[in-house]
Amino acid sequence: MFFKQLFEPESSTYTYLLACEHTKQAILIDPVASEIDVYMDLLEQHDLSLVYSLDTHVHADHVTGAKLLKERAGSKAVLHRNSGVSCGDILVTDGCLLRIGEIEVEARYTPGHTNACTSYVIDNMVFTGDALLIDGCGRTDFQEGNSGTLYDSIHNQLFTLPAETIVYPGHDYKGRTQSTIGHERESNARLGNNQTREGFIELMKNLDLPYPAKIDIALPANKACGTTVNVNAKK
Amino acid sequence: MFFKQLFEPESSTYTYLLACEHTKQAILIDPVASEIDVYMDLLEQHDLSLVYSLDTHVHADHVTGAKLLKERAGSKAVLHRNSGVSCGDILVTDGCLLRIGEIEVEARYTPGHTNACTSYVIDNMVFTGDALLIDGCGRTDFQEGNSGTLYDSIHNQLFTLPAETIVYPGHDYKGRTQSTIGHERESNARLGNNQTREGFIELMKNLDLPYPAKIDIALPANKACGTTVNVNAKK
Repeated sequence: MFFKQLFEPESSTYTYLLACEHTKQAILIDPVASEIDVYMDLLEQHDLSLVYSLDTHVHADHVTGAKLLKERAGSKAVLHRNSGVSCGDILVTDGCLLRIGEIEVEARYTPGHTNACTSYVIDNMVFTGDALLIDGCGRTDFQEGNSGTLYDSIHNQLFTLPAETIVYPGHDYKGRTQSTIGHERESNARLGNNQTREGFIELMKNLDLPYPAKIDIALPANKACGTTVNVNAKK
Repeated sequence: MFFKQLFEPESSTYTYLLACEHTKQAILIDPVASEIDVYMDLLEQHDLSLVYSLDTHVHADHVTGAKLLKERAGSKAVLHRNSGVSCGDILVTDGCLLRIGEIEVEARYTPGHTNACTSYVIDNMVFTGDALLIDGCGRTDFQEGNSGTLYDSIHNQLFTLPAETIVYPGHDYKGRTQSTIGHERESNARLGNNQTREGFIELMKNLDLPYPAKIDIALPANKACGTTVNVNAKK
């Protein structure tokens, strides 16, 4: 399986390109609008056909490349049904499977950071978006976020995966690229070491985070799968 | 919206072709392998591009055209995840939405006839497969069928639709082409007129139906999305 982790530095977003070596069919997880040329070059360079762009949620910090990829690569936009995104082509619910050549993607509904967060499990990897981050998790104070719900999602839908499952998050702000379910279950600063649900809720309540800088641009754009021109996370 | 109800007389199967008038993108619900040339002709005649073939379940009485359509029309095969069909491209779970131009398809999980039955709601129509039939329902004595489960599916997932919703079943053996949710809720011989769950289970237990004639051919073929050559419901 072809695998590439890409990084957009402005929002510290990780995007993942995966492809079946046999059929040359590809998917992109959490593409960023401003990086569209990078994706198109990579697809061309490796002779790949993009079938799906998958968003883990409606992002507040960058604009998705879903719509640009629909237009330029002919892919279908995939998100959770609760996203309320009118231009999504496939709106998944928990347990939905997508097969692309040898790649099998399982959607696991992991709300809490937002009400439409979905993690995608592929082989021994899980793409967690902003639900579970390396040594942390997404904030829960916007977009119908809920700390108790996030705790339940991470415990029931992610920490139940095999310990060796590789965690590929939606962001990292310290240059870390991956972790494992086992490591996060043990050591995550907010959720590891048998942290209780009540303890987690209390911790999240006291984070005192600033208003997200890009949210007023990013949310309306992402509700439309990202706009086609002149609006992206860098503006 | 383009709409056409097709009939395969050997197994009395209804197949439905729907298409968006603007994008010319189409879907087929419950295509039959032996009718592939009819479908290809219709697609060509109306200049339609087939995006998805959707099966309501793994059929026991005819062979699905899903695989032939993948090969000849480039469509993706859609079924419920519980179908255990290894060649399905999109394995939906309850609530999953697919958008094809102006067409929005909602999957409603309606097990009971089999453990993988899904009805598809499009606008004011519901395509019920063998869960709810006109004045009847699918049998529950094969493929992990369960009468209580079917009663619950029909009551919770179908009878809760608006009364005027048009019911398009997977079969009819008396030439009837459609019904409504309101009519079936009132008058269905097995489920209408406030039939109780216990009464329905008792009724289904005493049907004394013959072994399905095609099941030993159809099930293995359908587990592989229908075979490509020389096996169909007519053989």
